[in-house]
Amino acid sequence: MDAIDVIRVKRDGGTLTPGQIDWAVDAYTRGAIAEEQMAALAMAILLNGMTRPEVARWTDAMIRSGERMDWSALDRPTTDKHSTGGVGDKITLPLAPVVAACGAAVPQLSGRGLGHTGGTLDKLESIPGWRATLSTEEMLGVLAEAGAVVCAAGGGLAPADRKLYALRDVTGTVESIPLIASSIMSKKIAEGTGALVLDVKVGSGAFMKTVPDARELAETMVAIGTDHGVRTVALLTAMDRPLGDAVGNAVEVAESVEVLAGGGPSDVVELTVTLAREMLAAAGVSGKDPADALRDGTAMDVWRRMISAQGGDPSAPLPAAAETHQVLAPSSGVLTRLDAYGVGVAAWRLGAGRARKEDPVSSGAGVVCHAKPGDRVTAGQPLLTLHADDEARFARALESLDGAFEVSEGGTADRHPLVIERIA
Amino acid sequence: MDAIDVIRVKRDGGTLTPGQIDWAVDAYTRGAIAEEQMAALAMAILLNGMTRPEVARWTDAMIRSGERMDWSALDRPTTDKHSTGGVGDKITLPLAPVVAACGAAVPQLSGRGLGHTGGTLDKLESIPGWRATLSTEEMLGVLAEAGAVVCAAGGGLAPADRKLYALRDVTGTVESIPLIASSIMSKKIAEGTGALVLDVKVGSGAFMKTVPDARELAETMVAIGTDHGVRTVALLTAMDRPLGDAVGNAVEVAESVEVLAGGGPSDVVELTVTLAREMLAAAGVSGKDPADALRDGTAMDVWRRMISAQGGDPSAPLPAAAETHQVLAPSSGVLTRLDAYGVGVAAWRLGAGRARKEDPVSSGAGVVCHAKPGDRVTAGQPLLTLHADDEARFARALESLDGAFEVSEGGTADRHPLVIERIA
Repeated sequence: MDAIDVIRVKRDGGTLTPGQIDWAVDAYTRGAIAEEQMAALAMAILLNGMTRPEVARWTDAMIRSGERMDWSALDRPTTDKHSTGGVGDKITLPLAPVVAACGAAVPQLSGRGLGHTGGTLDKLESIPGWRATLSTEEMLGVLAEAGAVVCAAGGGLAPADRKLYALRDVTGTVESIPLIASSIMSKKIAEGTGALVLDVKVGSGAFMKTVPDARELAETMVAIGTDHGVRTVALLTAMDRPLGDAVGNAVEVAESVEVLAGGGPSDVVELTVTLAREMLAAAGVSGKDPADALRDGTAMDVWRRMISAQGGDPSAPLPAAAETHQVLAPSSGVLTRLDAYGVGVAAWRLGAGRARKEDPVSSGAGVVCHAKPGDRVTAGQPLLTLHADDEARFARALESLDGAFEVSEGGTADRHPLVIERIA
Repeated sequence: MDAIDVIRVKRDGGTLTPGQIDWAVDAYTRGAIAEEQMAALAMAILLNGMTRPEVARWTDAMIRSGERMDWSALDRPTTDKHSTGGVGDKITLPLAPVVAACGAAVPQLSGRGLGHTGGTLDKLESIPGWRATLSTEEMLGVLAEAGAVVCAAGGGLAPADRKLYALRDVTGTVESIPLIASSIMSKKIAEGTGALVLDVKVGSGAFMKTVPDARELAETMVAIGTDHGVRTVALLTAMDRPLGDAVGNAVEVAESVEVLAGGGPSDVVELTVTLAREMLAAAGVSGKDPADALRDGTAMDVWRRMISAQGGDPSAPLPAAAETHQVLAPSSGVLTRLDAYGVGVAAWRLGAGRARKEDPVSSGAGVVCHAKPGDRVTAGQPLLTLHADDEARFARALESLDGAFEVSEGGTADRHPLVIERIA
């Protein structure tokens, strides 16, 4: 087989055979297909699409490019969640302990942030001592001890996806539903979870801006998971405004701990409980309600065990940024809009996110919101607090907030339901 | 500017600005845009197209990536021809001397063959001693002495195109009219010719299989040439059957010499004279008719001077292949079809062409046709003679001829006009 023949099929709008897909993914992983050839193929896939069977096979080939983890030695079913990424999306932090407290095991391989959306590992790394990299044996140890583990994916898992993702990132070929779906699902299936709940974000702060696109992505992923024997459910959830009040790293950990202590912003609590119920149902575990686990402290107990087992000190004070800057309400009225994308970019520019994979992030940087859309505010009252290690960062962060919020006398905020749709 | 931003514009069906095009071509030439990024952009261009102004600017940027030659020191106007490539297309060999004999100068930078179409330089290199690589000063010397020069393009001419062509070749992005047009025209305009006649081949043995595609390519190239002050005309000509009788290297030189001696196959003579008249008219040179220059030996005189000036011996015997194999007429009747592509692939497999840029070619290898479509043949009469340095090559060459010709009792051959259309 020849790379150019495979490229031509997709370029000319054809359907790749299973043999062509297997060969292409394997040859690319081995280096027999050059980066520029895969870039041309990725662009042809982005523009001409893939059929559902093509996406399924592509995912399968990426899973087969590496190892597939196996948690059958555990005494309870495994279940996991994946979010397509949003602004203030710290849900994994309270969610994994809550689900473990209710009787399922959560073996979550997670990632770092890129651009305006944060990464779970970056957030957890703001906890003094906590480390993201574990061996498989260590993962099993944390799972046995705490019931949940959140750590970095090792290089042996879907190496084809790792290589392809880095290529897509620099060639303008990220925004392809078949490539996004196969990338996410190859990692999640290789991770070995028995059940999976997908949180597909929709709105300005999300990758998918519209419900039809999000639905297409969700349906594609649910079909792939189901085909591979993983009980998979997807929720489309709102990402037009930040989730919760805190956007950053340490500030999101602090907010997550509030939720685990039975408090915290109502949207974070609602989404945590909803996703936990879905994860437990998909894993076939019943008996305890996640809302109770937040109220009675059992979720907090798991959290502390989980953080400690990975070297973190759950009682240590979290790092704080050296500088703060307050954004005040320009007039009195209703906060009619607080745009997720604008706030996400502000947090990124303050130092919470990275522009390139190799950049470091600041633990203390971020944005804390003091009002939510629909709240009445008074002229001069603080709307947002910006946190950064260096004052020089405020100017560009403020630029990205220009037009990102609106206060209007007698206005109202559009109310979006947090959970828009469920796809099973 | 950023490569991903430029890729996204074309990916999303937009129009690149002149600034984006200039930046992309320059950055790619300098290595600031990576090969995989240009591959993604090339695929997006292939699938989403370019507007005429985009193609013009892209060509311009490729010309500006290197030097532009200048023949104003010559005492007569320059004119050139470019063929998009076909089977048996040796026209440059008689054409350049004929045009020079009629009073215009022909500074032709030419190329080598790849795949089933031959290359002018490969053909000329079968002449003992002849060398393709000349400095600009040497080119000027040959032009002054003979009136015509055919040699290899130096690395300083449109280096962006050189790099991009090699990339397109391995990424399935050759077949894009904007990219083909800009590639051809950037080299021809940088070559410094004042007038240009494009021979756009149409048919099974050509790159363009249909008249509408060939017309689109021709119109795009004529517009680019005209915009750059080069008087440009295009002819669409038939490439459904081989041009002339000989397909290879030395065998095509021999046939070209026959034409220069006033004989040779009628289609080669007709196309040579037609293109020569167009080249002279575009250069504003009148007075002598090309058909006369073939008859009176003045074209042959130029040929001998031109070959000698580049180290070749025009009187030396041409190399011959060690082995021959005859393909006989399977029955008596009319030869209704002799497919250019099949014959081209056979010559390639016999050793006349190359699969990769770095492969050598055989001077003696090729196919000589003893009948043309429309001719009556008798069962057992030789139809084709295959020439190769090694008998082992005949089997695969014969495979490519399977179904490439047809003899039918009482049949007729479709008659295509040699010149299909003229675009000015």
